[in-house]
Amino acid sequence: MPSLLHHPLDPSSRIIRLMCAEYGVPLDVEEIKPWLRTPELLEINPAGTLPIMLDDSDTPVVGLLAAIHTVEDLYTPAVVAGLFPPEPGGRAEMWRLIEWVITKLNDEVTRYLLEEKIIKRDQKGATPDPSVMRAAKANLNEHMLYFNWLLAHRTWLAGDMMTLADFTLAAHLSVLDYMGDMDWGKANETRDWYARLKSRPAFRTLLNDRVVAMPPHRGYADLDF
Amino acid sequence: MPSLLHHPLDPSSRIIRLMCAEYGVPLDVEEIKPWLRTPELLEINPAGTLPIMLDDSDTPVVGLLAAIHTVEDLYTPAVVAGLFPPEPGGRAEMWRLIEWVITKLNDEVTRYLLEEKIIKRDQKGATPDPSVMRAAKANLNEHMLYFNWLLAHRTWLAGDMMTLADFTLAAHLSVLDYMGDMDWGKANETRDWYARLKSRPAFRTLLNDRVVAMPPHRGYADLDF
Repeated sequence: MPSLLHHPLDPSSRIIRLMCAEYGVPLDVEEIKPWLRTPELLEINPAGTLPIMLDDSDTPVVGLLAAIHTVEDLYTPAVVAGLFPPEPGGRAEMWRLIEWVITKLNDEVTRYLLEEKIIKRDQKGATPDPSVMRAAKANLNEHMLYFNWLLAHRTWLAGDMMTLADFTLAAHLSVLDYMGDMDWGKANETRDWYARLKSRPAFRTLLNDRVVAMPPHRGYADLDF
Repeated sequence: MPSLLHHPLDPSSRIIRLMCAEYGVPLDVEEIKPWLRTPELLEINPAGTLPIMLDDSDTPVVGLLAAIHTVEDLYTPAVVAGLFPPEPGGRAEMWRLIEWVITKLNDEVTRYLLEEKIIKRDQKGATPDPSVMRAAKANLNEHMLYFNWLLAHRTWLAGDMMTLADFTLAAHLSVLDYMGDMDWGKANETRDWYARLKSRPAFRTLLNDRVVAMPPHRGYADLDF
């Protein structure tokens, strides 16, 4: 069974957990805090990032892109629909939106809120900076306008079929939702789409995640939120 | 013939130009400045990023990951070796290093130096901030230590074969070299590797790039530098 070094609120780790759950790949998960940059972590991944997949036989699979491609290469099941569209045009649209989320949304929203609310809890004397959190939430509003607009025109984020782009966005929004940063009242189209994803069996494991001394925001685990 | 909206010093555009040149795919290139965020650009790509590939028949292929996968899907030639390793383990190592360059190296080095030296030239009254450039160059030194160490143990960045990871790093270092930010005297292993890449036919088009009123740094186009 492959194992995964992850943190429950690391969005990249969540993408791989969702992908594996959807494909029926059992994962042995081990929680670490990558921001502590322990020698053990840096030896496997000098970049100090997650996720990291480990298997008995192979060298570690390090980072989000490597893990996505490894899961897709080795574990795409024959029995359920895959998460990559069959046509090149559909795959290009999927990758466009994955890139949007893992670079733009992450750089403008997710990474700041994680830094202020989670990582700073492990830094002596550090307190969340309200101005940084305000800026990140203003950025989030702009992103939500775009996702609402897209999802008003499409069944799934990249088009007619559910793809890895849906899981990628859902992974980020689920982290923001855990921390109480999602304002679902202003995001009808995205809320409807998220409700559909949330009710999938693959999503269950994420909804049970708990971080010590930081319970999830109200509604996080509710299918009707 | 596919066309590419690019900027000569945009590292992501350079990755696709190198990949297409290596695969023998002719490209009709059109230069734009993405930081001006023109309505024409934002209509094709609301993220305002490059590269963007256009073909007569299809919708635009937007962003680096979409372009990489489209070129690999549609244009991998039968006659030359591809840029993706045949084994899953080799591909995982390639993606690890691509992610390192396009997120970590970009976020800590390339994007800052481009912002200060190139983008600010189009902002009235803006001048490069020496403290930002100093920090970026200090970060670059740390990255070079890692690349030198890797390349002291390997023929190519991801192992025994040349892969897209080599082109990805070379695209970023070539931009830094154009701007005069590469200190090759301290980077023996990386310099030897870069000299091998630079002498490939695929690299020629990059070496002819010129930005208005900003000639390349001495040695940029020399195969013996």
